[in-house]
Amino acid sequence: MDILNQRIRQEGKIFPGNIVKVDGFLNHQVDTQFLRLLADEFAARFDISRATKILTAEASGIALATVCSLQYGIPMIYAKKAKSGNLGNELYRSQITSYTYQKTVTLICSKEWLGPNDRVLIIDDFMARGESMRGLIDIVRQAGAELVGIGVAVEKGFQGGGDGLRSEGYPLESLAIIDKADENGFVFRGE
Amino acid sequence: MDILNQRIRQEGKIFPGNIVKVDGFLNHQVDTQFLRLLADEFAARFDISRATKILTAEASGIALATVCSLQYGIPMIYAKKAKSGNLGNELYRSQITSYTYQKTVTLICSKEWLGPNDRVLIIDDFMARGESMRGLIDIVRQAGAELVGIGVAVEKGFQGGGDGLRSEGYPLESLAIIDKADENGFVFRGE
Repeated sequence: MDILNQRIRQEGKIFPGNIVKVDGFLNHQVDTQFLRLLADEFAARFDISRATKILTAEASGIALATVCSLQYGIPMIYAKKAKSGNLGNELYRSQITSYTYQKTVTLICSKEWLGPNDRVLIIDDFMARGESMRGLIDIVRQAGAELVGIGVAVEKGFQGGGDGLRSEGYPLESLAIIDKADENGFVFRGE
Repeated sequence: MDILNQRIRQEGKIFPGNIVKVDGFLNHQVDTQFLRLLADEFAARFDISRATKILTAEASGIALATVCSLQYGIPMIYAKKAKSGNLGNELYRSQITSYTYQKTVTLICSKEWLGPNDRVLIIDDFMARGESMRGLIDIVRQAGAELVGIGVAVEKGFQGGGDGLRSEGYPLESLAIIDKADENGFVFRGE
């Protein structure tokens, strides 16, 4: 998506170790008007009319998922990150390992809000190795719900999470795929 | 706000220890269309045209702050919760103690996105003792920014955080104030 690639090139910061920050418009300060354009682009790529719920993970996915929820007129659910193992039986839970933060957390989602009659669009702001995304997919599977699509704003293509999911047949659409981020700047897939 | 009181009465759950959950429409599953009505009500109570930024805290404040940001056409910033003390100099930080989770966390906000020229509307979904809110107020003060208003969806009035802030003169507007939540149900202030 050209305008997203442009904005990342203009405002994104690259730190040693291929760390990319877009915290001026996506995940610290948030330009919600701009996120509307991303929501419109997801709507062009997926059959939104089939979706009954949007699912994301706290915390940084919530803003984009909220904008999509407003635009499409369906509720949004955010999976929470639990630190405790003792969480009762009324929850779907999926254990994920964050390489960024070097720790294991459990994504949890109440069974009350997601079930076999739901058709789910997963939305997230960022994907690198895809660990968090696989946790969300696992929650959809546990719920017996149908996965309508997976929409990601920014994928770090060089970390392989997205290509892994695509090769397994998941309906993943990433609006910007960064294939390289180093001292020479950004290289986006398809450019 | 009558429709919010009604919705809490219909869908809110009360657990032992005066714990209130509204996770079907506010802070797990989120009814973003309903949040639009709350954003409109804040707009009626504050001079939104003066605000340059909306500030909230991750994670549960993000959805409501995003809806407000879209409605008012100004950016939203969410303060992050840091676990580490070693965070560099480019951050405002405010240490808060969560009584709910029995732990101390540091709210952080990049100096890049908030400064003395900003006029800030703080938005949060929930307030009990007000610890997290005082952290956000502290960040606005550190930035040298002006506080335009503090908008909260649901205040647990019986925990005193809101009354403390009002008595100190803060421009706090809570759309529902729960003065009692026990086996007999909810009592809202002003009813």
